[in-house]
Amino acid sequence: MSSSVSPLAPTNVPDMPEISGIRLATAEAGIRYKNRTDVLLTVMDKGTAVAGVFTRSKCPSAPVEWCRARLKNGKARALVVNSGNANAFTGKTGRQSTALTAQIAAKAVGCSPNEVFLASTGVIGEPLDASKFDGVLGRLAETASSGDYMNAAKAIMTTDTFPKVATARVKLGKTWVTINGMAKGAGMIAPDMATMLSFVFTDAPIAPAALQSLLRNGVEDTFNAVTIDGDTSTSDTLLAFATGAAAAHGAPKISRAGDAMLKAFIKALHGVLADLSEQVARDGEGARKLVEIIVEGATTKASARKIAMSVANSPLVKTAIAGEDANWGRVVMAVGKAGEPANRDRLSISFNGIRVAKSGARDPSYNEAEVSEAMKNPKVQIKISLGLGKGRDRVLTCDLTKEYVAINGDYRS
Amino acid sequence: MSSSVSPLAPTNVPDMPEISGIRLATAEAGIRYKNRTDVLLTVMDKGTAVAGVFTRSKCPSAPVEWCRARLKNGKARALVVNSGNANAFTGKTGRQSTALTAQIAAKAVGCSPNEVFLASTGVIGEPLDASKFDGVLGRLAETASSGDYMNAAKAIMTTDTFPKVATARVKLGKTWVTINGMAKGAGMIAPDMATMLSFVFTDAPIAPAALQSLLRNGVEDTFNAVTIDGDTSTSDTLLAFATGAAAAHGAPKISRAGDAMLKAFIKALHGVLADLSEQVARDGEGARKLVEIIVEGATTKASARKIAMSVANSPLVKTAIAGEDANWGRVVMAVGKAGEPANRDRLSISFNGIRVAKSGARDPSYNEAEVSEAMKNPKVQIKISLGLGKGRDRVLTCDLTKEYVAINGDYRS
Repeated sequence: MSSSVSPLAPTNVPDMPEISGIRLATAEAGIRYKNRTDVLLTVMDKGTAVAGVFTRSKCPSAPVEWCRARLKNGKARALVVNSGNANAFTGKTGRQSTALTAQIAAKAVGCSPNEVFLASTGVIGEPLDASKFDGVLGRLAETASSGDYMNAAKAIMTTDTFPKVATARVKLGKTWVTINGMAKGAGMIAPDMATMLSFVFTDAPIAPAALQSLLRNGVEDTFNAVTIDGDTSTSDTLLAFATGAAAAHGAPKISRAGDAMLKAFIKALHGVLADLSEQVARDGEGARKLVEIIVEGATTKASARKIAMSVANSPLVKTAIAGEDANWGRVVMAVGKAGEPANRDRLSISFNGIRVAKSGARDPSYNEAEVSEAMKNPKVQIKISLGLGKGRDRVLTCDLTKEYVAINGDYRS
Repeated sequence: MSSSVSPLAPTNVPDMPEISGIRLATAEAGIRYKNRTDVLLTVMDKGTAVAGVFTRSKCPSAPVEWCRARLKNGKARALVVNSGNANAFTGKTGRQSTALTAQIAAKAVGCSPNEVFLASTGVIGEPLDASKFDGVLGRLAETASSGDYMNAAKAIMTTDTFPKVATARVKLGKTWVTINGMAKGAGMIAPDMATMLSFVFTDAPIAPAALQSLLRNGVEDTFNAVTIDGDTSTSDTLLAFATGAAAAHGAPKISRAGDAMLKAFIKALHGVLADLSEQVARDGEGARKLVEIIVEGATTKASARKIAMSVANSPLVKTAIAGEDANWGRVVMAVGKAGEPANRDRLSISFNGIRVAKSGARDPSYNEAEVSEAMKNPKVQIKISLGLGKGRDRVLTCDLTKEYVAINGDYRS
């Protein structure tokens, strides 16, 4: 849907290694888009553990409800993702559609429908014709291969301008394990769990409950700390799959999230999630600036998060950044409206390291020309010091441009 | 700052009658703008009662703090309003500036500085040079006249494209009394009290505490139910002044807000506040559509308000309306993210009276062409029926256009 790649796209795209026990394939099912792939099938070996976190929307999509209900078994053999149609707010038809898709995938892979996980992204409210997967998934199951992460990431894109992948290698015990991830954005993104669609795969042998705990902790400062427009999707889904294949090479089987052997793995997983979620911010609809909001000196971390989000979601702050203006007055406004403890006369604000306001007034020492120059940087960091306590947090967002309005308002013309 | 008048501007502008005990005058003080008035002085007769509601921002402007501290006396003799500079986040200088302004006005009018009320609107963080009022206010006090509400409303504008006034005449006891009001918008507007600047004048003899109660109740479904961009100003101020001059013509002196004789007055006051607040929505920055969100069937009124606000502040809903698309999927999204009780499968949504979704799915009976035609109307009503209870509320907003981004992002170029 978008024609040009975001200027904030990462310049280094990693080679995605294979993960033993995971095979992927994509196809053109013709759900909505023409001349591009729109369906991804991932096939997992027997014994694969699954964990997931989902949108907190009170009106979740049918696939979100499907996955939630199947998570308790902790086992996955297949993942089907389509773009172009979110199968959200589709009533009974939507539930029938998820059941049929799972049935087709189960037959293709040779498993129970309850071992099939589903995610859909795209238009809300249109019935999803699951019969389009018939035949397609069977063919994909036969051709799935273990190295096709980049094509997989492409097939799940909607208004994204680039595919989002990340990878890490880390030792579990004395054995190297791999974590691969992919994600898609790019609008209707606010942190109320994992935002949008993202899938993480590893060969580490981690039991479902432990994997669930790692994933839930992992999103807090990554996917949950990203916002594009403050709008929360009905379809947000982050699923993690652990095949356990590395056990054959000596990796210890992990059953508890608190296991000390997980230390490096947790850090690597966090790195993959942070990488993917930053890419989502970099590809926010119409984004021309990556914006990092750091709040320190708040009464608590939760208070810092609320204030950072208030700033990150303020249309006036976001439009000012689009205009390359270090408009700290609007930052004050957004701090003030957050409703969290703040003392105007202790507030300091910096843009890209240049302090523009301190102790409740303009910093008399700052140089306007220097700040203007700094605001031309494609990455803008706003640091807000409240001077009240030790609460600190960080949130990523992007600017609000006319292109955002065009993408979301002109699509019919 | 804006060049063309909003297409949503009211076509009928009322003649503003005089109010006994109130005199107004405007001047060019040269605060920021060139070739336009930017300061308003209102002089009230002795015995004028005052009430006020203010922003809930944790970082309020110096004038807001000044007014709050003086409200307890309940007496007012003068109101000074300037546009171009909000005197917000200006630290100690800001407090000195309010004190100096009040002192100059007190001298001009012949009253105590504690009977002077102040409001400033415009840029945040710039020191306000109160010495610019010296001489000017003295001259204004001499020339102030009782009929100049329209010029007063013009002097307080910032990005507003038209002045906002409203008036009502109503019987208090057996005596006709008048209520005049004015307001300015037009961005950084979210309902956290009375939004923006608004001033209401009446000759009704109402004691300060009663007036305060009427005002607080009056804003709940008017100014507090309007949002332009979800951003709350540091300067929001609504002040009401009651000169009591109608007592000389037989109007009863009212000391309690619960007095049965106030019934018609309360209704008329609500009408003026509703009229002004709707004008603020009609003049939202870049607005091309007036949008009314009605939520019914919620568990409570408060819950309905939260859901209506979630829809009204959703960039994706607002951009869809700018694009004249009845995108009810985005409405579902915004209902879902509000965090309030909602059952997807009971949800119905109408655009301008045409039901497009019911019972958790697209309404099969609606006609796409008919809806498209209806969306061309400059007023768009979105009605959301939750089917859970009797909670109902209504909120006004506007669409989100490229002009909003231009006004708030391109101002430096």
